[in-house]
Amino acid sequence: MSGSLDGVYEELISRAKEISLIYSCLSVLDWDQKTYMPPNGAEQRSGQVSLLAGMGHRKFTDPQIGELLDALVSGKYAQDDYSDEATNIRELKRQYDKAKKVPNSLVIEISKVTTLADSVWVEAREKSDFASFQPWLEKVIDLKHQYAECVGYPKEPYDALLDDYEPGATVEAIGKVLGSFRKDLVAFVEKILGSGKHPDISIVSRDYPVEKQEIFGKMAAAAIGFDFNSGRLDVTTHPFCTGLGPGDTRITTRYNPKHFNDAFFGILHESGHGIYDQGLDRNHWGTPRGESISLGIHESQSRMWENLVGRSRSFWIYFHPIAQRIFTEALQDVSLDDFYFAVNAVEPSFIRVEADEVTYNLHILVRFEIEHAFFKGDLKVADIPSTWNERYKHYLGITPANDAQGCLQDVHWSNGYIGYFPTYALGNLYAAQFFAKARKDISDLEDQFSLGQFGDLREWLRKNIHAHGQKYRAGKLVEVVTGKPLSHIPLMEYLRAKFGSLYNAG
Amino acid sequence: MSGSLDGVYEELISRAKEISLIYSCLSVLDWDQKTYMPPNGAEQRSGQVSLLAGMGHRKFTDPQIGELLDALVSGKYAQDDYSDEATNIRELKRQYDKAKKVPNSLVIEISKVTTLADSVWVEAREKSDFASFQPWLEKVIDLKHQYAECVGYPKEPYDALLDDYEPGATVEAIGKVLGSFRKDLVAFVEKILGSGKHPDISIVSRDYPVEKQEIFGKMAAAAIGFDFNSGRLDVTTHPFCTGLGPGDTRITTRYNPKHFNDAFFGILHESGHGIYDQGLDRNHWGTPRGESISLGIHESQSRMWENLVGRSRSFWIYFHPIAQRIFTEALQDVSLDDFYFAVNAVEPSFIRVEADEVTYNLHILVRFEIEHAFFKGDLKVADIPSTWNERYKHYLGITPANDAQGCLQDVHWSNGYIGYFPTYALGNLYAAQFFAKARKDISDLEDQFSLGQFGDLREWLRKNIHAHGQKYRAGKLVEVVTGKPLSHIPLMEYLRAKFGSLYNAG
Repeated sequence: MSGSLDGVYEELISRAKEISLIYSCLSVLDWDQKTYMPPNGAEQRSGQVSLLAGMGHRKFTDPQIGELLDALVSGKYAQDDYSDEATNIRELKRQYDKAKKVPNSLVIEISKVTTLADSVWVEAREKSDFASFQPWLEKVIDLKHQYAECVGYPKEPYDALLDDYEPGATVEAIGKVLGSFRKDLVAFVEKILGSGKHPDISIVSRDYPVEKQEIFGKMAAAAIGFDFNSGRLDVTTHPFCTGLGPGDTRITTRYNPKHFNDAFFGILHESGHGIYDQGLDRNHWGTPRGESISLGIHESQSRMWENLVGRSRSFWIYFHPIAQRIFTEALQDVSLDDFYFAVNAVEPSFIRVEADEVTYNLHILVRFEIEHAFFKGDLKVADIPSTWNERYKHYLGITPANDAQGCLQDVHWSNGYIGYFPTYALGNLYAAQFFAKARKDISDLEDQFSLGQFGDLREWLRKNIHAHGQKYRAGKLVEVVTGKPLSHIPLMEYLRAKFGSLYNAG
Repeated sequence: MSGSLDGVYEELISRAKEISLIYSCLSVLDWDQKTYMPPNGAEQRSGQVSLLAGMGHRKFTDPQIGELLDALVSGKYAQDDYSDEATNIRELKRQYDKAKKVPNSLVIEISKVTTLADSVWVEAREKSDFASFQPWLEKVIDLKHQYAECVGYPKEPYDALLDDYEPGATVEAIGKVLGSFRKDLVAFVEKILGSGKHPDISIVSRDYPVEKQEIFGKMAAAAIGFDFNSGRLDVTTHPFCTGLGPGDTRITTRYNPKHFNDAFFGILHESGHGIYDQGLDRNHWGTPRGESISLGIHESQSRMWENLVGRSRSFWIYFHPIAQRIFTEALQDVSLDDFYFAVNAVEPSFIRVEADEVTYNLHILVRFEIEHAFFKGDLKVADIPSTWNERYKHYLGITPANDAQGCLQDVHWSNGYIGYFPTYALGNLYAAQFFAKARKDISDLEDQFSLGQFGDLREWLRKNIHAHGQKYRAGKLVEVVTGKPLSHIPLMEYLRAKFGSLYNAG
């Protein structure tokens, strides 16, 4: 009996790995498309992608996978919740059930409508014309409701969407944390803005030659632990990180020769994603046990290296003199403290992707509240612009001049990514809670940073987070690593300590 | 009846296109591996390649393909030899029969042995130690004999190998042409070397900054018609051209900052391959009717643009003043005629890939004669080095100092590519015969070159060669296009006219 179950499990794993290998080929095609593919290659690429995506989908939804899973779910391998085998069975079962519950016709309809909605959105944003986008967003919402009904949910349809990006998360659980966070954060932002203090941000808008930015960015990425023998950095319009498998993790950035922050912190951010990818257990590659947990946990890694490390004073104790030697003209007269303050300027703004470390979270909270409300039916789609503007006024003290600067700025909703936004805020919350624990475990952590040493933190992350793959869902992982459930307190404490001191706004 | 045969043909074509799509994904993986893949990505890439190659092979050797072909070969579609349908049926049948005749065990054995032989060869070349390579070459020859017996041949086993690279070619047919060519060429080279004239080749060994070489090379590639909206140029150790499908043709080069010729003529060469690829009929993509004919015909396109166009005086009438403006220091004091002579220097040398336009052919003829002899059993493998050196002495008047400079220099034999070399010489012969006809059809062809106009030649090639795909086999194509069977006369006439004048050696 046990012998035959071994065979069943091996068969499941062998299939999972083959499917992952197909998807990893797709990742190569996708990376190439975004970096180097010539313009006229688009049609051929689309055919290649359809072919491989179809193969992967067919192989994964093969009823034999269902039979293998059925044979395993109640067997010996699924007994211990956190064994490698139980992890793989649990997560493959979750993915398989989701894939089988959604009829192909709905998948195709969502794909068609979001493709059209996306091009309508591009034009609507250009013209700042929400009305033209409204019917398309309504269609997308309707389809995502159908989707939620197919896959099921614990309490409300929005949970089904959340689960796609943050498996196991529910609006009830994360809503509480995000609600408390908002209350504290809005009050704290008011204090900062009332402080009357302002860094000289012109410092970061001087001439930063692209070639030098590339050298400095790669140096920092390598220093924090992104392995360039197992990865690369290229240029794309929209920066991203993609894992093509063990030994091949690729990140991208874009350079602005008149602004230091964009590429540098972008590179640290993508390196954070990349270090997570490079830290996964390669022996389990191609199975859930060797894959990342959720968008939120992935984002916790990128935000930690970008902000908690990369925007820390101790980081710049080490890197500021090096930056001065590289950007001779821009930085010769700039002190460590002025530079540190400039890269940590807090300023309410309209555009999420340009927001600072503190107000960024408010951008996310607005989106989460609005999409949860319109998906639940509590907010009419037609009322999104006015609600958006009210919330920005209320939380950030500013009102967008038009919808292009407001509710039309992001690509997510037109693409059907409803339930995605909260993972950005979760990422920041996870990051702060993990980092607080890492500081306890490594007593001289920030002294190490100021010496250019990041290996202890990286190994701590590898051991406590990366190496587990999907052994724990995100919420459980937070408890296992930090001993406590997710809370907004560590992030608020971190923000208060850092920005309270910068802005005399404790 | 006819209706059902339509369905059979459509099914065959649909399968052929899907298989080609799989192989085009493999081409993306291969290009990436040679250009940008990080070193540690090799293992994952090897898994991806095995998976897709296996899929492609299984789909192509599916017995149902054989049944479809059997139903079609005697039907209405195969009646007219040169119809699109007959072309596809004929060439797919040829490929399918070859693939089915070779047992999988032999394919695997050849792959294993050549992989090992290749690494032995690398070391043997480093140490200039033919003896250590000899038993491996013997194994390769033995396996290729087994291969030839499996697939069959018209007259002798070597024909089976030739057919892999130059479908339909036989040693009897090409041997005659190459034999006459050798006789005339050896005599002509003697005349050149006896002329006492020497260009100042130091001109092309000055400082040619890489960034400027890239600009100039891309300008020339675009001018002759390589479409950069449907292609790219990157850097690799070993230059190549690869077609990833309609709208996506990629070429590579390598730059030597102290030598003009390597990258520039390399780029023209690869552009020639690329223009062929870009000129194929995209409506037939994925079927033989939309694919290139043979290595020899492909090489005729690259050599034509590299040599017959790119090393012509009229080409440099247009490009020399531009080169002078770009390479200000290297070329300011260099006249058109001195430059033209320098890029056309004829000098016997040991290394094939560095050989000039005239002696290059002798390098190939040595290889052809030797591999034909050892494959036939007329030459012992142990005697290759001495025979090689005798021939070099006889044809080129020089003797390699060691086997690394002699019979160990090329990668082909260790890789099992026996029968490949002659396609290089065939390429030059085809190129000259096509070019002679193009000059007749376009009376002011070379005047056009001197004005930087290459469109008429490109369109002539597209119409007469590229657009046909595999409608004609190489030998037939030569007759269709030029009205005569392949002959060495056009190439000798071209060489005599050009180099006779440069060297006073008519």
